[in-house]
Amino acid sequence: MQKNLKYDIPENIRKKISELKVLGPTSSYAYGYIQANLVIIDKNFAFDFLSYSMLNPSPCPILEVLEPGNPIPVKTATNSDIRYDLGKYLIFHKGKSEIVENIENYWTKTKVTFLIGCLFSMQKQFEDSGIYIQHLNENKIDPTFISNIPTNSFGIFNGPMVVSMWPIHKNYITKAITISSKLPSVHGKPIHIGDPKLIGIKDIEKPDYGDTIKLKPDEIPVFWGCGITPQLIAQQKNIDMITHHPGNMYITDLKTNEMEII
Amino acid sequence: MQKNLKYDIPENIRKKISELKVLGPTSSYAYGYIQANLVIIDKNFAFDFLSYSMLNPSPCPILEVLEPGNPIPVKTATNSDIRYDLGKYLIFHKGKSEIVENIENYWTKTKVTFLIGCLFSMQKQFEDSGIYIQHLNENKIDPTFISNIPTNSFGIFNGPMVVSMWPIHKNYITKAITISSKLPSVHGKPIHIGDPKLIGIKDIEKPDYGDTIKLKPDEIPVFWGCGITPQLIAQQKNIDMITHHPGNMYITDLKTNEMEII
Repeated sequence: MQKNLKYDIPENIRKKISELKVLGPTSSYAYGYIQANLVIIDKNFAFDFLSYSMLNPSPCPILEVLEPGNPIPVKTATNSDIRYDLGKYLIFHKGKSEIVENIENYWTKTKVTFLIGCLFSMQKQFEDSGIYIQHLNENKIDPTFISNIPTNSFGIFNGPMVVSMWPIHKNYITKAITISSKLPSVHGKPIHIGDPKLIGIKDIEKPDYGDTIKLKPDEIPVFWGCGITPQLIAQQKNIDMITHHPGNMYITDLKTNEMEII
Repeated sequence: MQKNLKYDIPENIRKKISELKVLGPTSSYAYGYIQANLVIIDKNFAFDFLSYSMLNPSPCPILEVLEPGNPIPVKTATNSDIRYDLGKYLIFHKGKSEIVENIENYWTKTKVTFLIGCLFSMQKQFEDSGIYIQHLNENKIDPTFISNIPTNSFGIFNGPMVVSMWPIHKNYITKAITISSKLPSVHGKPIHIGDPKLIGIKDIEKPDYGDTIKLKPDEIPVFWGCGITPQLIAQQKNIDMITHHPGNMYITDLKTNEMEII
């Protein structure tokens, strides 16, 4: 973890990321600010994807949608360009995927950008409330799993929900629910609490994405919807899509506290 | 107010409405259930309108979006047909408007239906908490006004926000905020509380839509975003749109309590 970036402001961090001066997972960066998943698709699919996201607010809470061809956010961060300001991108094209450092060469006037809330945004709220976050302290990416929870389909978009798992001490479960329920724009309340098998996860120490986190005694696995869900759909349906590389989020200027809904 | 419909179930009421056996404002019907504004537009504008709605969750909280050509909701009420189950519809076409009792003759395979939460959905929660609702007791439609609050634009959609005003006793303001904040899907927290002039309303007794409600001593005007906002855009921009007639809402099978977000 780069300690100096934990309390740095988003604009500085985005600049360092775009200049490739800092890379890697952003989970510990810009503490207290909203981080976002990225989905870029052609405008022909934009209505279907946005409708799909609205039907599935747990994995796909929409923070912002940009007009076709516009890579400059107007709400989440104005002094920014989506094409450069993430550390690593994943390009899904004709059934194959590729990792790149910027998407200048992939940008067209028909590209529509969706920014989707990320659970990293809650880290400060959790720690301020005494909730220990193991993956942060171990400098890891939180583990995410392909669950057996079906998402609601719309148009060509459907498939199982990808979920993130954070181990929470048994005495802090209620607090974790209360904090996250107030933040629907960054996944909101947990989608499942307890036995992983009930949502189709056979081995909690073998995540589909991210790092392995071992549960400690007195910890319960708590699961939230995960913004990697659209990436899985892109793979399964052969849909052309540009996304962030897991863990390498877009850091916005929005403060998490300001996004609380009550 | 038809007392017998206050506690009847949505399915029965929709049937009576579709058979034209009961008409008029639905504000006192199906107490405790979610009511919805209707917007139907061509699929060419569907992405822009949905993005616009997401940028403006106060006047346009989306409850459900139907696939192009489908008039049967899958989430808000399955045993229902949008074309018949509202009492009165407004057709905006080539800059003119017309009131009709069903939209069978206007339906096409490219029509996309949006259901947008309505403040009527909070009536039971308010009354259960001791909040007096004047327009219900006087058998009126709540007054709505064209404010000077600009909405956030997307594509061709933009314009001022239409707001609903409910007078709230000064001792119940906090309670009204708490109840409505938990229900973002039916407009959520107030958009303004107090002096109407601060949001461009010159005369609180001259609403642009609905009935006049006189404030009693000890009452404060409280304003929420209103789902008539898209109708104003249709008029101002000459966009073809099918909507409900103000006050004649779509009554869903969703219980308001179940839509509370925390």
